[in-house]
Amino acid sequence: MSLQEGHPLDEIFHPRSIAIVGASASQQVGGWVSRLLNFGYTGRLYPVNPKATEISGLKAYPTVRDIPDPVDYAIFNIPARLAPQIMEDCVAKGVKAAHIFTAGFSETGKEEARELEAQTAAIARDGGVRVIGPNCMGVYYPAAGLTFNPAFSKEAGNVAFIAQTGAGTIRFVYLANDRGIHFSKVISYGNAIDLDAPDFLEYLASDDETEIVTGYIEGVKDGRRFLEAVRKCLMTKPVIILKAGLTESGAGAAASHTAALAGSESVWDAFFKQTGAIRVDTIEEMADVLLTLLRMPCPSGRRVGIVGRGGGIGVIATDTCERAGLKVPPFLAETRRQLEEIIPEAGAGARNPVETTLGMIGAADFYARGLNIVDADPQIDFILTHIAVDIYGGRQPYLQEQVVMAVEVLSNTAQTLTKPVAVVLSAGEYVESVTAVLEARQRLLKAGIPVYPTIKAAASAISKLIEYHEFATT
Amino acid sequence: MSLQEGHPLDEIFHPRSIAIVGASASQQVGGWVSRLLNFGYTGRLYPVNPKATEISGLKAYPTVRDIPDPVDYAIFNIPARLAPQIMEDCVAKGVKAAHIFTAGFSETGKEEARELEAQTAAIARDGGVRVIGPNCMGVYYPAAGLTFNPAFSKEAGNVAFIAQTGAGTIRFVYLANDRGIHFSKVISYGNAIDLDAPDFLEYLASDDETEIVTGYIEGVKDGRRFLEAVRKCLMTKPVIILKAGLTESGAGAAASHTAALAGSESVWDAFFKQTGAIRVDTIEEMADVLLTLLRMPCPSGRRVGIVGRGGGIGVIATDTCERAGLKVPPFLAETRRQLEEIIPEAGAGARNPVETTLGMIGAADFYARGLNIVDADPQIDFILTHIAVDIYGGRQPYLQEQVVMAVEVLSNTAQTLTKPVAVVLSAGEYVESVTAVLEARQRLLKAGIPVYPTIKAAASAISKLIEYHEFATT
Repeated sequence: MSLQEGHPLDEIFHPRSIAIVGASASQQVGGWVSRLLNFGYTGRLYPVNPKATEISGLKAYPTVRDIPDPVDYAIFNIPARLAPQIMEDCVAKGVKAAHIFTAGFSETGKEEARELEAQTAAIARDGGVRVIGPNCMGVYYPAAGLTFNPAFSKEAGNVAFIAQTGAGTIRFVYLANDRGIHFSKVISYGNAIDLDAPDFLEYLASDDETEIVTGYIEGVKDGRRFLEAVRKCLMTKPVIILKAGLTESGAGAAASHTAALAGSESVWDAFFKQTGAIRVDTIEEMADVLLTLLRMPCPSGRRVGIVGRGGGIGVIATDTCERAGLKVPPFLAETRRQLEEIIPEAGAGARNPVETTLGMIGAADFYARGLNIVDADPQIDFILTHIAVDIYGGRQPYLQEQVVMAVEVLSNTAQTLTKPVAVVLSAGEYVESVTAVLEARQRLLKAGIPVYPTIKAAASAISKLIEYHEFATT
Repeated sequence: MSLQEGHPLDEIFHPRSIAIVGASASQQVGGWVSRLLNFGYTGRLYPVNPKATEISGLKAYPTVRDIPDPVDYAIFNIPARLAPQIMEDCVAKGVKAAHIFTAGFSETGKEEARELEAQTAAIARDGGVRVIGPNCMGVYYPAAGLTFNPAFSKEAGNVAFIAQTGAGTIRFVYLANDRGIHFSKVISYGNAIDLDAPDFLEYLASDDETEIVTGYIEGVKDGRRFLEAVRKCLMTKPVIILKAGLTESGAGAAASHTAALAGSESVWDAFFKQTGAIRVDTIEEMADVLLTLLRMPCPSGRRVGIVGRGGGIGVIATDTCERAGLKVPPFLAETRRQLEEIIPEAGAGARNPVETTLGMIGAADFYARGLNIVDADPQIDFILTHIAVDIYGGRQPYLQEQVVMAVEVLSNTAQTLTKPVAVVLSAGEYVESVTAVLEARQRLLKAGIPVYPTIKAAASAISKLIEYHEFATT
């Protein structure tokens, strides 16, 4: 575990003891106590519940004040109206940091809820308790066995995520985990009455467990500090940001979600241009861009060689790549000559895209040779290969074998390529092809090859990778 | 079967007899003869192959001329160099129309191949044989048992598709079939040396089996005629067009695919604006827009009520809808009051989007009531409901039941709604959630409810539906 001693976040990531205030007395699945126990947290856990004497095998206490030992961190799982009183208890106990899971504060837009929040914040501030939340999921830090979701990977990784969204965080972690990506630190921080994006970003900039910073931001209270914190991160690691609430109605939705002031599109346009932070619009796109940063060496330029399906699918792929800011130049004459040697006449072109008749039985060898020929073309900076499982496997009984064969050839051939390669696996929407694709995807990801669900997703993510490196080197 | 007697396409859709020239003598899966027999073609079939005496139980003939009976339609499954000679045979035999499946003509860019194509075209023209192709898959007309792919649905429907792509046609038909959509007529017509888009469109404009026309177009030889044919269709039915090859490299790829002249982006922009044809960029988008036209009554306006996941996912959904040209206005105060009655405090907003706690066990009733409350809001023109199977089911053991429950509630509730409703099912990327979603999707589609994979796909498709109706009524 990395430590930044004295930093308020250090107590949050490395608590020696945690009080769960409002620990559920029933043995329901997913209670905070059992969740932390099962996830591998090895510090001391103190359930707090005036109506229970024991929870998940641990002694329960009526209040935080009654816990006999020091408490580093408290999780508030109580109705909003009790928050000020619990915070008083935390101050009295000397708790260093609190995560207020509870919602029902300023995000409701109601005056009394806003006051409740301000009151709680004031007690914490005056009493020296740092706060995450309210209205948020809190911390997922697998290295210390901290989580709010039992289904997240227990494996620690090198990606940090900060977010004003709980469900969005769950979606993102799942998408990343399913891409073989693991996390250093994840913080869902909701209304941010104390600790806010700049605090987390400053910490992550110096965090040697974190190599990429990702974030979902609704509003920023101190724009200058946020900008500087992002810049500080960007000096040593890429930053991907999904700025939500940029449309008129989106800003209203953000206000109702975390009481955030969303800011205008033009301000944020300028922010992305000035800092070089990578901009994404959806959680799915963030997962694709993250995968690209982690698994694809940056190509030396924007010229892509498309190998796989040609024909109309290839024309659409070409348009899609160009619209994403890539180039699809014709191969050199010599490359085309070599490709024409291995491609039968039927429906194939060797201009770029090239259809290597992938999918006909026995064509796997042509596919491998096609990849190597395109790799050698100096006109090309990287390869995008499209395995159209939905089409070429068709609904044939040999679908599964074909996909396995193509993936095997691809995994082996990728080792011999001199240029970066990315793979699109088109699944279609029927169970057999979708499950074949999910399995093939895992094999490729394990071989270190980035895989995308569509040409559009791949082209956009790769374009952003190149843009990031262009910015970083100028 | 509908007939347009005397129209050259009538012979193609209703052939009393078909010669398969170059019928495969081996009993390989997917040969033209067995494919047509298995698909239900009930006319006479004549395999032509000088090296065989019998194919799939039918007597084989050395040449078309040797067939004793009249032949309406011939499919050329022979090397390109033989095409002129076979066409001579067809002329001599009085064949009315031919589908040249074979590739290796002008799309290769080679002079001798271009000459071969011109020669074949001239023989056909002088001899009165109409031609589909070359370099194409030909006709899929389930009502007459005609197909080029054995896995296509045998059920006839009301959608026509014309395309200069074979693999793209397979992808599109699969996507449509998997959405419960079936076809009237599909024509993959490749290089179009004779019959071209305007011929097919003119026919489809008067075809009473066809209620929606869709097309993938690379190039158009006679722009004026194409425009008029699209207009003729649009007088009675929607037309969705994917115009491929609009970027610089895309145009090059199209030339190499079907020798098409792709035309400039500005000309096509004007075409879409003038005609009111619906523009799409990918095959997947075409399937989503088609589904919307077929399954969603046009909303009376662009104001969407988003029901399902709120929070950050809701903010992103709001931005996505607005960017697609929809509006996400706040609900009326009365609507919000009613929603607040059924929504527990935790993390929920009732502004729009509204989070109906869908996904917590027992929340299905709230979900149904939430849909009804939003439906009654006069500020809202239609409902988009988001079932985030990837998040709310999590990786819980009860995922499957939850999804089934939500879908059941939704199917029943949809009957009681006064406004159009669309559903987004987020699958995530792990096998359990993906298979649960595919199954849930089928149930909803069977209940007549349109389902989309992402908010973006839904918002864009619905926006295009509204745009089409706005154009049609002005």
